Formats: sequence, structure tokens, C-alpha cells
Amino acid sequence: MAELKNDRLLRALRRQSVDRTPVWIMRQAGRYLPEYRATRARAGGIIELFRSPELACEVTLQPLERYDLDAAILFSDILTVPDALGLGLYFEAGEGPRFRDPVRTAADIEALPELDPERDLGYVIEAVRTIRRALGGRVPLIGFSGSPWTLATYMVEGGSTRDFARIKTLAFADPRRMHRLLALLARAVTSYLEAQIRAGAQAVQLFDTWGGVLGHAAYREFSLQYMVQIVEGLRAGAGRHVPVIVFTKGGGGWIEDIAASGCDCIGLDWTADLGAARRQTGGRIALQGNMDPAILRAPPERIRAEVAALLDSYGPGSGHVFNLGHGVTPEIDPEHVRVLVEAVHELSPAYHV
Amino acid sequence: MAELKNDRLLRALRRQSVDRTPVWIMRQAGRYLPEYRATRARAGGIIELFRSPELACEVTLQPLERYDLDAAILFSDILTVPDALGLGLYFEAGEGPRFRDPVRTAADIEALPELDPERDLGYVIEAVRTIRRALGGRVPLIGFSGSPWTLATYMVEGGSTRDFARIKTLAFADPRRMHRLLALLARAVTSYLEAQIRAGAQAVQLFDTWGGVLGHAAYREFSLQYMVQIVEGLRAGAGRHVPVIVFTKGGGGWIEDIAASGCDCIGLDWTADLGAARRQTGGRIALQGNMDPAILRAPPERIRAEVAALLDSYGPGSGHVFNLGHGVTPEIDPEHVRVLVEAVHELSPAYHV
Repeated sequence: MAELKNDRLLRALRRQSVDRTPVWIMRQAGRYLPEYRATRARAGGIIELFRSPELACEVTLQPLERYDLDAAILFSDILTVPDALGLGLYFEAGEGPRFRDPVRTAADIEALPELDPERDLGYVIEAVRTIRRALGGRVPLIGFSGSPWTLATYMVEGGSTRDFARIKTLAFADPRRMHRLLALLARAVTSYLEAQIRAGAQAVQLFDTWGGVLGHAAYREFSLQYMVQIVEGLRAGAGRHVPVIVFTKGGGGWIEDIAASGCDCIGLDWTADLGAARRQTGGRIALQGNMDPAILRAPPERIRAEVAALLDSYGPGSGHVFNLGHGVTPEIDPEHVRVLVEAVHELSPAYHV
Repeated sequence: MAELKNDRLLRALRRQSVDRTPVWIMRQAGRYLPEYRATRARAGGIIELFRSPELACEVTLQPLERYDLDAAILFSDILTVPDALGLGLYFEAGEGPRFRDPVRTAADIEALPELDPERDLGYVIEAVRTIRRALGGRVPLIGFSGSPWTLATYMVEGGSTRDFARIKTLAFADPRRMHRLLALLARAVTSYLEAQIRAGAQAVQLFDTWGGVLGHAAYREFSLQYMVQIVEGLRAGAGRHVPVIVFTKGGGGWIEDIAASGCDCIGLDWTADLGAARRQTGGRIALQGNMDPAILRAPPERIRAEVAALLDSYGPGSGHVFNLGHGVTPEIDPEHVRVLVEAVHELSPAYHV
């Protein structure tokens, strides 16, 4: 494969010196871009879009045509794994993702198969290969998966939820069954990320979108423990040299636990204090984030001021990957994303002299 | 008024010695209780219920008849203040609270009147007087209000929201106007709590339900700053000797900032680490919380184990008020709440010898 021309992201993830802070944006390939909406309309829907390696590649590259970003991230859905396990993913307008056959009973859990990613999620693995070829070494490609806990919440709730009633009842009232489901998902996610890495992913991110709805002890028991298993699994095999980013939304209070997981980088949401997180982890780990996506609604001067404040909060030296604290939302003006990227380019070299 | 017979809560809030950890439960007067549902049905609806001092008193006392709790909390709604400011509160089945006239324009903000609580919220103040009489000194009565930021989110969004798009656009794109609204609300909440205190509230809690959707700097600017103004306002007048609890959901990362607000006690949600919070604040402030309400879905043994773990996490000595990390939810079995209260009674004396 083509030699990597921009290794800022990989160097920052390893806390090696860089000329400026690398920047990419969660959900950078997404609905705020008119060209994304056009491709999606052409595909016929979101499921058709991420199931097509060619179209997934097309939308993965779209933000790189607009902005001088330091990474591409595989365009896919967080729920491909449960879908491949037979739950029947579909999308209801305005309601988000849903499963036709949610996991509700002991028998449902027992009946879940082991995942074979090349067989069951071949379209994702092929998308990774296609994107790597199309990138031609321009920037690294980030692969990803939902965390076991986060996947389990959707599988048990059957879709989005505000109160996490079903999954928490399972976790607190029947922890043995909960752990059986999470262990199966940890094996599935490990093999899924290994397959992405073999196909060309140069870094991977675990999206633990819902770990933050748990208390501290429950987070360690039901979410972090399984992410540790995944990191250790990757280290023992195909992912030996591939940096792993762990992003727990709402995990700002548990940074030391996450740092001990063996991952290379902690993704922070915007409620975390970036400078405090750096002091807490003492430079042992890279940090990614963490601007509130809602700041992109503000005028350019305010966006630039926020970029400046975040760079200043992290301070001099490598180990910071600039990003939002969560995905960019559909109503954002693409020109405001440009303001963010250009502000990082302009202001960050002063922190790397 | 009758002499207070159980001062555990007030002593713990002042970090004075107690014989056991005081316990009350957020939303202890609520839909999980059949007697509450009966009174509410009799009233005709939630608005009719909290607007009637007699019925508000009746439901406030219901949980005290069932459980040996150490405090009563005024039964009211968090949105009485915006309603009194003319926004027209109503409830849509399954949708939560809504405002007929949300605050959307500069003119809407300019047109808001100053609150006179005795005139505009007389039914709440009368409920406080009625409850104090009915309590006869059995336990202290906690008054409360939403925080300015939390009230503003509902006023600007017009109801519940998942993404806080309108309020964050106002905050980040037009901060001067946002501050004008928050300053008005801080004055309104101060006078509202003062009126509750004059009517007999023996402690007050600020519910900052949505402070945690902000980043750290934005939290200080748009939420905490105004809670500090309220605490200082109370200290200068009627609330001089009345303990103030500040509860920011999702505020576990900002404990030192909240501790510096001048409040007596920080309410923690279940994602915060109680023991770490105590070490961080060095015993300078009381802490309230913080069991995940979802634990009440688990069998009694699990609830007891969680109570034990929380008491152990706080450790020996006063300054802990046992509570959930958020309100008890409607589907909880009232017998499980009994298990919690009795476990605190049984297990906590060992921490106060």
C-alpha cells in the first residue's frame, strides 16, 4: 500500500513530536455536508449507503476534499455488529436506529452466534480496503466499533432510549446474563477491529457512547472491563502496532481508569477539562477532543476563540488530537467547520516549537 | 412553629456529628407511590396538584407515612418560575412539560417581568406554610428551585430537548442576551427561595438538571456563576442560616468549582465517585447522593449491597446525606425504596461512632 504522507495523527497518538496539532472531526462525513446528502439520496438510504463499499468510500473522502484534515474515518454505522448478529437493523424517520428482534430473554442471548467479520461484515472490510486504496497514503484511516456496553444498550432496548431502563434492569438484576452478552460482544468487536486492521485501518476508536450513563463501579464492571479485553486482544494479534482510542461520552471523571486500560488515547467529550485531564494522566497517554459541537453554531470569532482556549488548555507539546467532544450535527454550516480546521492549523504550531 | 425533633439532615449539612446518615430521596413524593397517583387523579392533573397548597402538602407527607425519612421536600414543579413569568406551562401526555410562549427573541427576553414570589407564586409559598404546620417539627422541610440555566433551557427550547440546540445557540452566538436572561432568573430564584425560607423552608436545593450539558468554562459562565449569585443573595438576607444544596447533574468533574460557590452541600449524580469527591473537597463541604435510581430495579440484596458500598465509599464521619443520584422513577416498587431506607438506617451507624 502507498506510503503514508501525513503521519501527524499517528505521531500524536504515540506522543511523538509534531509540527502542529492533528485534527479530525467525529462524524466529519455526515449530514451537514450537501455532497453527503446527495450521495445518500443516490444510495436510497443510510443502510444502502454504508453497505456499499464504493459509496462508503465516496462519503469517507468527501470531508477531505473540503478541509485539510489529518485523518479519514471509515464511514459506517455503530450498529453493524448487532445487525450482523441477526437483530435486523432498520431506521425509522426521526426515531434513529431500531432492531426488529431486540435481545430480551435469556434464550435470545444464548441464541446469538459468534461473529465472523469477513463473512458477516464483509461489506465493511471491503470498504476499508477500498478507502485505503483511494486515500493513496494521503492521511491515515481510522477504523471503529461501538463498545460492547454501547452495542448492548441498543440490542436490549431495541433502539435509542432516554432512561436505559431495560439494559440497567438486566445489568443490576441479572448481572451474570449481562456479562454473557458483553463477553460475546467483546469477542465480536475484537475480531471486527482485527479484520479492519488487516484490511488497512491504521488506528481504531472504540465509541463508548453510553458508558457515561453508569455509575463509576458499574462503568468498570459493565463497560471498561470489556474495552480492556478488546485492547488486550488487539495487542496480542493483528492490532499490535495500531493505536487504540477509547472514547467514553461522560467518562471525564474516570480518566485514570481509562488510562489504565492499555489504550493509546482517551477521547474526551466537551464536559471534560482537557488541561486537567493532561495533568491527571501525566503525559502517559494521548488525549483527543473536546470542543462542544454546539460551538459550531456560533460566529467564526467565537469558534476561533474556543479553538485557542482548548489548545491553550492542553498546553505545549505533543499528545493532543484536536476534535469535537461528540459528532458534528446535521444543521451546522460547513463553513464553520472550515473555521475550526483552519484555526487549529494557524494557532497550534506555537505549541510545537 | 413546632420545635424540630429530627435534625439529622441539618446537622449533616453542617458537618456536625450525627447518630446515623440522614436519608431522603429525590422525587420521594411521586408517581411510584399509589397514594400519590390517587391524589393526583383526584386533583385532575399535575398542574392542579402543585397549585393546591392542601394537595401539595398531602403528597409531600405521603412518603413520610411509609418510610422513616429524615426530610420532607416541598412537592412542586421545577418550572413554576417561568410559568409565573408568563410563559404558560402545560403538560403533554408522554412529552413532559411545554411552554405556550417560549422565549425566542430579544423582545421576548426584554418583556419578561421581575418576579414577586408572594404575588406570583403565592400557592407555593402557602404550600410551604401548610407543610410546615402539618409536619409539626417531625423532620425539616427542604425548599427548592431550578437553577437559572436549567430554567432558561426549558424557557428557550419550549420544553424538553435532547440536543439543547436553541439554548446553546443563544449562549454561544449571543452571550450578552443569554446573560440578561440568566441575570433576571437569578434575581427571580433568589427572591423565590427567600420567600420559601420566610415561609418555613429549613434547607433549600438548587436543581441544576442541565448544567452538565455544558463544557467546563461554559458551565462556570452560564450556570455556576448565577448559582453563586443566588447563594450570596440568600446569605445576605432571609437565608443567612439556611443550608443550601447545589445539585448539578453531570457536574462530577467540577466539584471544586461548585464547592467554591459558598453552598453547604454538593448533590452528586450517580456517575460521580463519592469517596473521591470527599477527598477532593477535603471535608470542607457536605455531599449528598448518589445511588443510581436504576439500582432500585434490582433485587433487595443488590440494593443493600449498593447502599453498603456507598456508605463505605464516603467513609466514617458526618457530612454525607444519603440520596439517589437523580429522582426515583415511576415504575419502581415502593418496597424497594423501603429496602434502601432501612439499609441506610441499619448500616450507617457504624460510620458514626
